[in-house]
Amino acid sequence: MKIDPNEISDFNQRNIGSHQSQWELLKLQLEKSNFDPADLVKRVSDYKTAVPSWALGAGGTRFGRFGIAGEPANLENKIEDVALLKDLSAGTNSISLHIPWDIPKDATYIKKFASERGIGFDAVNSNTFQDQSNQKHSYQFGSLCHTDQRVRDQAIAHNCEVIDWGESLGSKALTVWLADGTCFPGQANFRGQWERTLDSLKKIYAHLPKDWKVLVEYKPYEPNFYSTVIQDWGTALLLADALGDKAFCLVDLGHHLPHANIEQIVATLLMKGKLGGFHFNDSKYGDDDLTVGSINPYALFLIFYELRCGMDDCHEKNPDLAWMIDASHNLKDPLEDLLQSLEAIKIAYAKALLVDKEALEFARNENDVTLGQEILQNAYLLDVRPLLREARLSEGAAIDPIDLYRERGVRAALTLERGVASVATGL
Amino acid sequence: MKIDPNEISDFNQRNIGSHQSQWELLKLQLEKSNFDPADLVKRVSDYKTAVPSWALGAGGTRFGRFGIAGEPANLENKIEDVALLKDLSAGTNSISLHIPWDIPKDATYIKKFASERGIGFDAVNSNTFQDQSNQKHSYQFGSLCHTDQRVRDQAIAHNCEVIDWGESLGSKALTVWLADGTCFPGQANFRGQWERTLDSLKKIYAHLPKDWKVLVEYKPYEPNFYSTVIQDWGTALLLADALGDKAFCLVDLGHHLPHANIEQIVATLLMKGKLGGFHFNDSKYGDDDLTVGSINPYALFLIFYELRCGMDDCHEKNPDLAWMIDASHNLKDPLEDLLQSLEAIKIAYAKALLVDKEALEFARNENDVTLGQEILQNAYLLDVRPLLREARLSEGAAIDPIDLYRERGVRAALTLERGVASVATGL
Amino acid sequence: MKIDPNEISDFNQRNIGSHQSQWELLKLQLEKSNFDPADLVKRVSDYKTAVPSWALGAGGTRFGRFGIAGEPANLENKIEDVALLKDLSAGTNSISLHIPWDIPKDATYIKKFASERGIGFDAVNSNTFQDQSNQKHSYQFGSLCHTDQRVRDQAIAHNCEVIDWGESLGSKALTVWLADGTCFPGQANFRGQWERTLDSLKKIYAHLPKDWKVLVEYKPYEPNFYSTVIQDWGTALLLADALGDKAFCLVDLGHHLPHANIEQIVATLLMKGKLGGFHFNDSKYGDDDLTVGSINPYALFLIFYELRCGMDDCHEKNPDLAWMIDASHNLKDPLEDLLQSLEAIKIAYAKALLVDKEALEFARNENDVTLGQEILQNAYLLDVRPLLREARLSEGAAIDPIDLYRERGVRAALTLERGVASVATGL
Amino acid sequence: MKIDPNEISDFNQRNIGSHQSQWELLKLQLEKSNFDPADLVKRVSDYKTAVPSWALGAGGTRFGRFGIAGEPANLENKIEDVALLKDLSAGTNSISLHIPWDIPKDATYIKKFASERGIGFDAVNSNTFQDQSNQKHSYQFGSLCHTDQRVRDQAIAHNCEVIDWGESLGSKALTVWLADGTCFPGQANFRGQWERTLDSLKKIYAHLPKDWKVLVEYKPYEPNFYSTVIQDWGTALLLADALGDKAFCLVDLGHHLPHANIEQIVATLLMKGKLGGFHFNDSKYGDDDLTVGSINPYALFLIFYELRCGMDDCHEKNPDLAWMIDASHNLKDPLEDLLQSLEAIKIAYAKALLVDKEALEFARNENDVTLGQEILQNAYLLDVRPLLREARLSEGAAIDPIDLYRERGVRAALTLERGVASVATGL
Repeated sequence: MKIDPNEISDFNQRNIGSHQSQWELLKLQLEKSNFDPADLVKRVSDYKTAVPSWALGAGGTRFGRFGIAGEPANLENKIEDVALLKDLSAGTNSISLHIPWDIPKDATYIKKFASERGIGFDAVNSNTFQDQSNQKHSYQFGSLCHTDQRVRDQAIAHNCEVIDWGESLGSKALTVWLADGTCFPGQANFRGQWERTLDSLKKIYAHLPKDWKVLVEYKPYEPNFYSTVIQDWGTALLLADALGDKAFCLVDLGHHLPHANIEQIVATLLMKGKLGGFHFNDSKYGDDDLTVGSINPYALFLIFYELRCGMDDCHEKNPDLAWMIDASHNLKDPLEDLLQSLEAIKIAYAKALLVDKEALEFARNENDVTLGQEILQNAYLLDVRPLLREARLSEGAAIDPIDLYRERGVRAALTLERGVASVATGL
Repeated sequence: MKIDPNEISDFNQRNIGSHQSQWELLKLQLEKSNFDPADLVKRVSDYKTAVPSWALGAGGTRFGRFGIAGEPANLENKIEDVALLKDLSAGTNSISLHIPWDIPKDATYIKKFASERGIGFDAVNSNTFQDQSNQKHSYQFGSLCHTDQRVRDQAIAHNCEVIDWGESLGSKALTVWLADGTCFPGQANFRGQWERTLDSLKKIYAHLPKDWKVLVEYKPYEPNFYSTVIQDWGTALLLADALGDKAFCLVDLGHHLPHANIEQIVATLLMKGKLGGFHFNDSKYGDDDLTVGSINPYALFLIFYELRCGMDDCHEKNPDLAWMIDASHNLKDPLEDLLQSLEAIKIAYAKALLVDKEALEFARNENDVTLGQEILQNAYLLDVRPLLREARLSEGAAIDPIDLYRERGVRAALTLERGVASVATGL
Repeated sequence: MKIDPNEISDFNQRNIGSHQSQWELLKLQLEKSNFDPADLVKRVSDYKTAVPSWALGAGGTRFGRFGIAGEPANLENKIEDVALLKDLSAGTNSISLHIPWDIPKDATYIKKFASERGIGFDAVNSNTFQDQSNQKHSYQFGSLCHTDQRVRDQAIAHNCEVIDWGESLGSKALTVWLADGTCFPGQANFRGQWERTLDSLKKIYAHLPKDWKVLVEYKPYEPNFYSTVIQDWGTALLLADALGDKAFCLVDLGHHLPHANIEQIVATLLMKGKLGGFHFNDSKYGDDDLTVGSINPYALFLIFYELRCGMDDCHEKNPDLAWMIDASHNLKDPLEDLLQSLEAIKIAYAKALLVDKEALEFARNENDVTLGQEILQNAYLLDVRPLLREARLSEGAAIDPIDLYRERGVRAALTLERGVASVATGL
Repeated sequence: MKIDPNEISDFNQRNIGSHQSQWELLKLQLEKSNFDPADLVKRVSDYKTAVPSWALGAGGTRFGRFGIAGEPANLENKIEDVALLKDLSAGTNSISLHIPWDIPKDATYIKKFASERGIGFDAVNSNTFQDQSNQKHSYQFGSLCHTDQRVRDQAIAHNCEVIDWGESLGSKALTVWLADGTCFPGQANFRGQWERTLDSLKKIYAHLPKDWKVLVEYKPYEPNFYSTVIQDWGTALLLADALGDKAFCLVDLGHHLPHANIEQIVATLLMKGKLGGFHFNDSKYGDDDLTVGSINPYALFLIFYELRCGMDDCHEKNPDLAWMIDASHNLKDPLEDLLQSLEAIKIAYAKALLVDKEALEFARNENDVTLGQEILQNAYLLDVRPLLREARLSEGAAIDPIDLYRERGVRAALTLERGVASVATGL
């Protein structure tokens, strides 16, 4: 299903409320602080985050899964869902596929199908953490790190195939998240695992098209509960350095030990020119994959400030990043949840843009700790929603995406279209 | 399948090795410390841990599941597996069922089937964390805490039914583990959830036979990732106190926040006469459900020392406990894993028995911190495996259960019998 | 030193900036949501937090302490500092003393001295975690839990003496934070420690004046690193229940294990009518004692929403709470830091007041998880600083306290007055 | 004071007990597993750990310090204490100094004084986390990372001076532990801090004598509670790589985020040839600095197994390591505590040596997870104390060091010699 632009502008007219006066007042405040409101609207508009194909249906936990009616049953459905998110929020313009969950029957057709809806293809993701029914060798004891050369070869071939699918669709990056690791002390030789993984990655790297990147993701635990081969950013960076100029690290917010200072990790990787991508979500305990900004929005803001500085300062060194949401939806309508995430990301980004960087650097230089905190919080405490609304209006999106989504009865319509029992591929 | 006692004694004769001299030396050491070796053998023999029906097949994570050949496909198979563990290790003599995964077609027959194999029925477990296909109302937003009375009633009825099944089999306790909680700030009213849960539990409690207990389990997170209704021992105790004399708390080792001092929680609940059951496993990160003793065996020993003291001191107050393993087997043969867990539990128990309690209390009274640590570690550092072997020999079990299990090719035999693709009910 | 009211109003006139238009727009938004702006101004004004005497000087870590010029060298200085905070921010009107750090030479005089400056005396705090030079028995191995009756008697007598000092000054509560615990497995008998602690607390309780409360604080670790006698809210509640109607629990935000859901603990204690006090600070790792709101302001908001609901709903059950900041200032000017904390507390409180409680309860009842999150975040994302400024103006305080503090050169003036090397008593 | 060798041998004769029969039986077991007992005795004997000068007196927390009678009041006393530990346990033969706490008045004399007692000088440690009374610039806002060049120059000069003192005493390594970091978001520019730190370290590196190493230590938090400049092994490795061949990383067991897999970090650094030193202690919560092996001895064993493998395999790449205890003694007699630590280290090392490495690698290659765990635990569960006793006897040390220490009344003698109120320099 698709929402007509007229319907959106009609909704906006009916719901404009006090937006203009709020935006006028915010503009005054911004101008007083020497910001250019028009430029801010543009930067906020231009910032787009990819939506992963697997987040469009219900997620699950090891204890079970509660399906959601009207789930996208095929790749076309998924692309339509992302297009819907784009039309409503202007927060995204691309989809990130997971192979083999999303193998297109006809790549040319799918590429056109997406393009007609304004959707492109972000990084493609391989899957060697599950066994597929037709698979020769099992990944129970690892994939790229496996002790058995045949298993490694199978996993390498799979990744190369993923690259090929991605190329046929216009993707420019492969994201490798490895579940490889161990559950028990004694199970594996850490060094052997690392060396075999590097060796496998080199073969995948050799298959990368010239203008592609490979993004190496790290995670300390789950589904392995004693060790993982790529446990932290340090390990990911060692691998990326060993692979070459097209290899970068990918940060997923939920993939850290308790209390980790993620913003500092981001700053370090940007300094090294090796930050390649970002997976947004939020969490209270572990890799909870909750809606972005739902648990600790201030931490997200701090991370965005480092990202903003990195993008400003390191342009020559660090390439453009692949931004993606990576959440799981066990309780909420996935589309509503994604709208909340897209909003939270832009809120954090907008606030990061509003930090008075020059004043902050001055305070830091003087070790004026009180002032440094004040400057950050002054930006954080601003209500930037008028700016986001203005950006959405400027792109013809809904002034309040979730309200329109609900008023329009989108989920009911999708359920009618696709049925109650349709099941999206994914976790 | 069943292993003939003669086969076991034959195996023991062939593998007795230097057991006798090791046991003799250990006996000397024990006697020098005023322990009675025969009494220790008896106490170690008498200590039995229930095996949960769901741990006999492969477990899984949210990322997938790797099946294991020869899984028990029905309740009889599961009982046979536990009987096998009993015959090999003498570490267990009961099974703990999960309803509806293990509903017996004919309770009388199943009870007899188990009894003939020396297996009894430990606590029964209800399941309101998953929806069953024939279920009227969904538990997606909770069960005993749900805002909708009809959902609560359904969950209460299920628990009562579980009690009935348990009664028909000879169980004496119901374990209630609730997944109920929330994933997002704002989702629920904490107080309302708590009050509705208590109200539901009261109705279940009213259905308990006279000689039964209800065990209230707590867990801080997973599968809900913002809050759980029964988040910690304090909350479980408030509920158990509000329910009455037949209600107790159940401690699962993996259900705590990082760094929690579990042995102190155990001591507190025993002091209050409200510790009812124990779920053994081990973990490095969260509720990892790893083999008992595989990550931090010293912590297990410290907990066992509190359990031993509680059993000694509080006998009048605290009832006998329900001991159970609660692990998940993603990588190992479940039967081998359970043999390792049963061994680890008895090792910890035996070492706890060997602590010189009187000397320890003396050191504590004097605040002789060095000595207190020495006394504990003196017991912990002992190699008590000769004592465990002696206890097994005294019961006709295998001197080395895993070796016999492998020599005998048990898994291959089970696979022949049950097939490669049999799937056990469970997670 | 004291800042003249005229000076403040003068400062306010010079710095009123666009406050009026911001406040007008916020008022419109509030009225549209059916809030009464005048009532909100009053509630925000009325909310006061006590300042602890020990936070007025520099704090330290075990690695050292960096002094701050112009520290208050005696109790009068400390009261003057709190009066300064009051005049600048209208966020506080009382001081919380720590005995023996703050023993007044002449209680009548000090009470009058404080009263003339609009300052009252909040809960008094005892100190049995350090040895004083003239002390007979050491607290190295505990105080109220000590195995030696003489040490316990000394600690009991000290607490009674603290009550007496408090009574002479007009305090109405004693806060007991116990460092008692152990550093090593084996060091102490958990149950014995608990029972002796209860016994000691009963004697202190017996000394409480009729209209007093005793607040039992819990903490999982530090300065003891294996166990603490009162490790969590459950243990504190057991003690408070055993003591009687005048005993309550005190929550310090930094005294929890990683990931603890503190807002749920707050809700539970309020439900039981046993929440007596609150210590505000923030932390990333442990009991870091950082400025309130500096690390996770959203968590603070969630806690405040529970506090607000508890105050609304449980009025008959739970008494008024003792609110206090408990932070340590290693890097910032303590007065600036306290101004930031007082501001962060009122921001969180104001946002909690702005949650549409009725709508939220409706969403919760419907299990509309998306909506529940939206309602909370709609309040959180508001910029409530105009409301706080309006509240300060209504009380004659500074529109921007830190700006006035700096413009006026308060620290330099204090340094002139008190010297560079004055040292406040405290950690 | 010094204990006469005759006294020790006399003590050993009186306390030999059943050592011989225990050792004989263990020897049989070891030989059956193809180990050479004599070689094991030699390897265990040869393994020595340095004792830090600051651990010979009482440590403290930010809440206070409880002194211990007879503390070493000067450097000679400290060396005598280490010599005592050496004579009693044969577990150490060197001391690690902290400058300026341990500046020798006359290096030649001190070197001779130590050498006569069999004590050498391990790595020297600089101190830029505290201000000394005569210091020009404060380290409140950092040292090597400070924004002010003058502060950095002062800290660089201090480190160079520490090298000079070390050279005069025969040390071969400088350990740099930086407290540098921040307590609040906004306080500093991460990248700027990192670059200034590298720049400062380069100047210190340039001052290193040819045969010296510099060891870069990392720590995630404390005394800074938002960020530290060298937060983890990845950051330390980036610095060590940027410095050159004489720069290595140093791992302190307590300097990690919760749940970190330290053994994997050790394996990675050894693989890179960049592990330079190790600080032993134990902890339950954070950098608790407890006695080695007192909380999680199995984790220590797993780390030692990686260290053993690294020492076996990487000999060409990784240099010999600097082993040191780094604990703090708040409750125990420091010398007793150090004896316990030295014993725990050798126990873990001995057990690591007893792992059947070849069999383990075979199991790993086969992904035989059960067997891998069995092999590790078979070594861990052995009681290796007879081997340690035999090693001590072979070196003329006490069969049970703490028993002799107590029988001999060492602390009382030291107190007589040095007084009750002597205070060691340190934390």
